[in-house]
Amino acid sequence: MAHTGTHSQPVRACLLLVVVSVWVQQVDGVWPLPQQLDQSADRNSLSPQRFSFTYGRDSAAQTGCSVLDAAFKRYFSIIFPDFTKGSENGLQYMWSEPQPFVVSVSVKTRGCDGYPDEDSDESYNLSVSEGQAVLRSVTVWGALRGLESFSQLVYQDDYGSYFINKTEIVDFPRFAFRGLLLDTSRHYLPLHAILKTLDAMAYSKFNVFHWHIVDDPSFPYQSRTFPDLSNKGAFHPFTHVYTQSDVMRVIEHARMRGIRVIPEFDSPGHTQSWGKGQPNLLTPCYKGDVPSGSFGPVDPTVDTTYKFMESLLKEVKFVFPDSYVHLGGDEVSFACWQSNPNVRTFMEKMGFGKDFTKLESFYMESIMNMTAALNRTSIVWQDVFDYHERIPQDTVLEIWKGETYQAELSRMTKAGHRVLLSAPWYINHISYGQDWRNSYAVQPQNFSGTEEQKKLVIGGEVAMWGEYVDATNLNPRLWPRACAAAERLWSDEEKTLNADLAFPRLEKFRCELLRRGIQAEPLFVGHCKHEYDGL
Amino acid sequence: MAHTGTHSQPVRACLLLVVVSVWVQQVDGVWPLPQQLDQSADRNSLSPQRFSFTYGRDSAAQTGCSVLDAAFKRYFSIIFPDFTKGSENGLQYMWSEPQPFVVSVSVKTRGCDGYPDEDSDESYNLSVSEGQAVLRSVTVWGALRGLESFSQLVYQDDYGSYFINKTEIVDFPRFAFRGLLLDTSRHYLPLHAILKTLDAMAYSKFNVFHWHIVDDPSFPYQSRTFPDLSNKGAFHPFTHVYTQSDVMRVIEHARMRGIRVIPEFDSPGHTQSWGKGQPNLLTPCYKGDVPSGSFGPVDPTVDTTYKFMESLLKEVKFVFPDSYVHLGGDEVSFACWQSNPNVRTFMEKMGFGKDFTKLESFYMESIMNMTAALNRTSIVWQDVFDYHERIPQDTVLEIWKGETYQAELSRMTKAGHRVLLSAPWYINHISYGQDWRNSYAVQPQNFSGTEEQKKLVIGGEVAMWGEYVDATNLNPRLWPRACAAAERLWSDEEKTLNADLAFPRLEKFRCELLRRGIQAEPLFVGHCKHEYDGL
Repeated sequence: MAHTGTHSQPVRACLLLVVVSVWVQQVDGVWPLPQQLDQSADRNSLSPQRFSFTYGRDSAAQTGCSVLDAAFKRYFSIIFPDFTKGSENGLQYMWSEPQPFVVSVSVKTRGCDGYPDEDSDESYNLSVSEGQAVLRSVTVWGALRGLESFSQLVYQDDYGSYFINKTEIVDFPRFAFRGLLLDTSRHYLPLHAILKTLDAMAYSKFNVFHWHIVDDPSFPYQSRTFPDLSNKGAFHPFTHVYTQSDVMRVIEHARMRGIRVIPEFDSPGHTQSWGKGQPNLLTPCYKGDVPSGSFGPVDPTVDTTYKFMESLLKEVKFVFPDSYVHLGGDEVSFACWQSNPNVRTFMEKMGFGKDFTKLESFYMESIMNMTAALNRTSIVWQDVFDYHERIPQDTVLEIWKGETYQAELSRMTKAGHRVLLSAPWYINHISYGQDWRNSYAVQPQNFSGTEEQKKLVIGGEVAMWGEYVDATNLNPRLWPRACAAAERLWSDEEKTLNADLAFPRLEKFRCELLRRGIQAEPLFVGHCKHEYDGL
Repeated sequence: MAHTGTHSQPVRACLLLVVVSVWVQQVDGVWPLPQQLDQSADRNSLSPQRFSFTYGRDSAAQTGCSVLDAAFKRYFSIIFPDFTKGSENGLQYMWSEPQPFVVSVSVKTRGCDGYPDEDSDESYNLSVSEGQAVLRSVTVWGALRGLESFSQLVYQDDYGSYFINKTEIVDFPRFAFRGLLLDTSRHYLPLHAILKTLDAMAYSKFNVFHWHIVDDPSFPYQSRTFPDLSNKGAFHPFTHVYTQSDVMRVIEHARMRGIRVIPEFDSPGHTQSWGKGQPNLLTPCYKGDVPSGSFGPVDPTVDTTYKFMESLLKEVKFVFPDSYVHLGGDEVSFACWQSNPNVRTFMEKMGFGKDFTKLESFYMESIMNMTAALNRTSIVWQDVFDYHERIPQDTVLEIWKGETYQAELSRMTKAGHRVLLSAPWYINHISYGQDWRNSYAVQPQNFSGTEEQKKLVIGGEVAMWGEYVDATNLNPRLWPRACAAAERLWSDEEKTLNADLAFPRLEKFRCELLRRGIQAEPLFVGHCKHEYDGL
């Protein structure tokens, strides 16, 4: 190993140490900014050979805890990539016998085999001192957040030696729900693109993967109950689908990183691809007295629709462990319903008059009730509330319309609903320059309402819709742009109001993402020590 | 091989043939659109086992012609990627004994060891009939364009069999200069990113790589005469530089694809990074009577500047074989010159009054004369002409200011200068949606002027400035957006006025780019048979 040779050159080593102390910049950033962070200039050197993660004696989780055992391995590789890659004497020189460094992790409750959920406590305390770090959390999910912060505290000098400064962190998320939406219908995203996104999400402490898995253009979810949905509705029945085993891999990869997976099966609109494999599900549109051959939203007037939706939702409950499911409900066009004589008769029978919002509400209420009967919490897009304010109280509402989101927050929380804000984070909308700065102007709780109302804002979601995005450009469009939203959802609002202050920290974090193999685009002119080499 | 088994199943094979003929869509696109393209539904099957490129008997180039020997190998791999990868029986099934197919290439002039230049004839004729294709061109560069078109004519059915339809192409470029600018100063682009860009350029028939190699932020060109320029001016003296051997690789990689490499050493502005390794080159700025410590443009008042520039340009001539060199001359700020008492004295002495455009013109004229003395043609940005219309007649002017480019075209060509248009193709400026469509509205010859003036527009350049671009996002931002400009620079204007008509062809070409390993982003919702798998 590299350090054996240097003992014979004590004088040169000392001289170089002087140089090093000038060259090495103290690196004090953690992204997103912890609630409390105190650092001193005192630094410890770390060496991969004498570094270890361990469980604290008083920890409820011990060796064998799947989530943390795997995290220890993962973060070792992240912190010491050269060492892991087998080139032990790559860039690394040591000036003295390496000292041991132990990261002791203690959690209060076990729960290693469970899933993170809406109530998961993600707080942690991290104390880095000489030769050791102590990480304490209530849950394993909090420990994961702490390990991420720990990994960001470690830095290398120009000779490849590793250091960490004396640090005290007390940290917890501002919002419990910090989501990222991927759309796998408008373009198919290969499994590895999703897994890589989950990796990067964990680096920014996102904790919900909102999987907009199907939509009009394609139905890549391979259903066990209704295999024709993907056989006929996917772009390709073999190469452009997510098998049951793919979905399980996504869920487990996410769980290992403390990330929930919430699938969205958006209906009654956005379902063109469903119709290919499920005859009689969609409403036949009419031209005058005859069917035009095209189809509209799900047909809410026939029993078969509800039987189908119930079977599908049962499967979804079985496959996706999270207690939430996203039912969509957005952008339903009424023209086709209006053209269909059966729908019109049904409207009359139900006393809906000519108000098709009532028909949509009728449909959504039915499937929200189904979902509740399956012991799942529904999330729906704002349209459902806009049409029909009296919906089941525990439904979570998601805001996507940009212009009016503050008024909407006010109305929804006044009605007692929990709310997710996505409107200002439609990150698929790109523009020239540093558009990540916009995130710093978003204030999800800045609306007229009581303190109780503000608490009903449970978080937000970055949405990467797929019209113009697939595996070729997903990563550079997501990262580091999404990191800005991640910080605003995790960190103290007052400490993270200023995009100019965030800039140098985000630049540094973006370089760290590159070092970890995430194809994160640059913020501005400059360079990273480890440039992206994945081409 | 796969076809041996199928002979025992003639009935199934025949049945499937019927299906195949329904499934296989005739693929008739070539990007950019050839000047004349006639295709019939008659198709030949091709099999990699019995496919060959050969030199026509009457060809001036024969085996041993570096450019074409290499191109034959390259295009074989492009056309038959599965075969090349060694999986001979991958997707491929054959219904009958494969027939031979020979592509015979004949060029009129040899020139295999030369470089493409401004006068290179890129025209070619391609005739595809039963069992053969005949490609004729004046130069090897024209043959390369024809081979590219040929490779795009070949397609596969769902079983992996290869076909090409009977086709006649007569083709030549609309403009002789079809450039793409990469900026390697604001971000360093690793060598492989440049080489990959050259590959993709050839697919769209670009023929000039404008290498904006140095600028304010960094000086990555490792000069043999002035090694301190990169030692001190690069982002990093070892990892963020282009060595002489890197530059040679770029030039040779480009030559093999019929692409010229024109370096830009932009001065007197945009030279902050130069100053780090070349003391006394930049103008010291003053605050009142004392130097402020910061520096402005190159100091045009001292002899040492001109000696340095002459040595540098001599090296550039030696290293870069192209007869053009780009001298920049854009965006010079006069504030620092104005602050400097020596510069003011010089202005007085020269009788320039307070007109600093005269000082810039004086400087530019000097280095344009140097360049002419080195037998090189200068390209300069429009500013140089805007300040001083009387500049050497054979100087090529490049337009980058967007608002007024038609008036500028008119003025410049009236003064008898050859002109390059880049203003409408600043492709680093991104926006949401299909901004490639804008290229179809650009009409470089639509300005008030005579036919002679119009001919002075020698072409255009797509510019990918590097403020927000490095290896993480270069490829998806370039491709397929740059392809639209490439078509407008190559193809008949009248046949390519309509972006809607181009859309399906560009979608198909984009899928072909993916198949060739280029990380080209999607145009809109949909999928490709071969998705990008380079993650």
